[in-house]
Amino acid sequence: MRIDNLQYANWSEKIFRQMNEGGVHAVHVTIAYHENFRETVLNFEQWNRWFEQYPDLIFAGKVAADVDHAVANNKTAIFFGFQNPSPIEDDIGLVEIVHTLGARFMQLTYNNQSLLATGCYESYDSGLTRMGKQVVREMNRVGLVVDMSHSGDHSTIEAAEFSQRPIAITHANPHEWEPALRNKRQSVIEAVTSNGGMFGFSLYPHHLHGKTDCTLESFCTMIARTADKYGVQHLGLGTDLCQDQPDAIVEWMRVGRWSKEIDYGEGSAASPGFPPMPQWFQDNRDFGNIEQGLRTLGMSADEVAGIMGGNWYRFYAENFTPTAA
Amino acid sequence: MRIDNLQYANWSEKIFRQMNEGGVHAVHVTIAYHENFRETVLNFEQWNRWFEQYPDLIFAGKVAADVDHAVANNKTAIFFGFQNPSPIEDDIGLVEIVHTLGARFMQLTYNNQSLLATGCYESYDSGLTRMGKQVVREMNRVGLVVDMSHSGDHSTIEAAEFSQRPIAITHANPHEWEPALRNKRQSVIEAVTSNGGMFGFSLYPHHLHGKTDCTLESFCTMIARTADKYGVQHLGLGTDLCQDQPDAIVEWMRVGRWSKEIDYGEGSAASPGFPPMPQWFQDNRDFGNIEQGLRTLGMSADEVAGIMGGNWYRFYAENFTPTAA
Repeated sequence: MRIDNLQYANWSEKIFRQMNEGGVHAVHVTIAYHENFRETVLNFEQWNRWFEQYPDLIFAGKVAADVDHAVANNKTAIFFGFQNPSPIEDDIGLVEIVHTLGARFMQLTYNNQSLLATGCYESYDSGLTRMGKQVVREMNRVGLVVDMSHSGDHSTIEAAEFSQRPIAITHANPHEWEPALRNKRQSVIEAVTSNGGMFGFSLYPHHLHGKTDCTLESFCTMIARTADKYGVQHLGLGTDLCQDQPDAIVEWMRVGRWSKEIDYGEGSAASPGFPPMPQWFQDNRDFGNIEQGLRTLGMSADEVAGIMGGNWYRFYAENFTPTAA
Repeated sequence: MRIDNLQYANWSEKIFRQMNEGGVHAVHVTIAYHENFRETVLNFEQWNRWFEQYPDLIFAGKVAADVDHAVANNKTAIFFGFQNPSPIEDDIGLVEIVHTLGARFMQLTYNNQSLLATGCYESYDSGLTRMGKQVVREMNRVGLVVDMSHSGDHSTIEAAEFSQRPIAITHANPHEWEPALRNKRQSVIEAVTSNGGMFGFSLYPHHLHGKTDCTLESFCTMIARTADKYGVQHLGLGTDLCQDQPDAIVEWMRVGRWSKEIDYGEGSAASPGFPPMPQWFQDNRDFGNIEQGLRTLGMSADEVAGIMGGNWYRFYAENFTPTAA
């Protein structure tokens, strides 16, 4: 079983076929960066069209059992998520609505301050806001997972402790391996995993040691060390694969509608677009390289299976449905 | 000339006639607490209907000269404002759009954390956000005044210093007179007025010493002391008159859509609704009482005229139009 818990590709039949060829049974796909509720519904609609067009390749995933169905039928279950709470606007009632529509992960912030918490690019991180605490409780109730990948450290630790159910960092790496702004310090990973949460390793080059030139061995060694520190059962993949996206998309991700000036985020004026992926992870057909890399390091078959998908599967099973009344 | 720089009444022909009887030449009316852009446009539409229905009483004010027109024709110019940035959603481009539609004041926050700054009810005040700084610059450019009445102290002081044009606290009183959460400490009033900004005195009972039983003399003495400390030219009225509003409205103001639990704001479970206004200020016909009260204390005719409207008039003249290119 292979699960990639974060992709944001320029979706196409080609990519859906590559998921199939790569044996990827579930993908958590981002369908909102700055979209408001109505715009997010348009993105759900677009996926409905793709499910209608490519029923032999993909279908809408709602619960963990859908991944079993994908394995049995050689398909890919698509789970939806938001990298920003913009889809719920200022309306706590929309939390249950977006869950009903299929959302399973929602970041409380995307780089900037939101109505709920503080993003990792702000100068000060004041933690969960008044609305943020209300919304986390509601997300807990309905089974919408709190994702803090793009949040500040204080907000992330507070969310991990305040949430009544485990939370996730779906796509990032340890800061001690590569000191990128988006990578996570020990106290942050500790807060998330010690409360039962998951940490997904990113393959976005800005998060890699050596960026595009990062070696498979360095990446897999980093995973093994992280497993030693926090427990292998809390680890999975969230590749952040942005395959075939034009550079205009990274500008939308970074600037949305909030600024009249360009903001380069993890890029720069000299290198504003998407960086090239490492040679050993170009698309969904390359998960075998990571699996082989982990085995080469001497990790057990069970441990590798957990990282490649089993751990996310268990997390899905425990966190996608409402709490008992 | 009389200007009331904050009202949020349950508008009716009766109230428009009372404005006329009270010689109120301009009123800044709140048309958004939690409304998003489209909902705010509905509120502009409602005012267009009233302007069409009551042309002998009210008209849309855009610039200070409209107040002169109101004086000359015995009418009331209505200026629009928002107590929350919800009308611009997450879109900096909407700043110019709402100004074109007639908005002249916008609070950066209403009690809670917004995308721009921190409200006075949050535990931590992190000041202007990344988007907040961009939006203040844009508000400065188009002539939309920053109002910090419901913001935290740090955010207010930072906004007063960061803004390139004077800002306002349209409706509050000094904290040293009545230590309400919404009343403002010396450092805050100093930051706003020393940068050319305006401070409007509130008659909302929760902001008054003795609440509903506050005496006219106590209120006027407080104004005189504030004038001695910060300069009379920076002072005006922003009564926060919520005439004829049902209690359901104060619930909307406090809770909007952000919480499933009731939040009592300045009220309490025992007293959740609008408090009764002081006997000497029931509606728009009572501005003469305040004017008389200030004169009785020995303030000069010029000083009293400034507080009753002249100071807001000057502020309107300087701050409602775009900066020169």
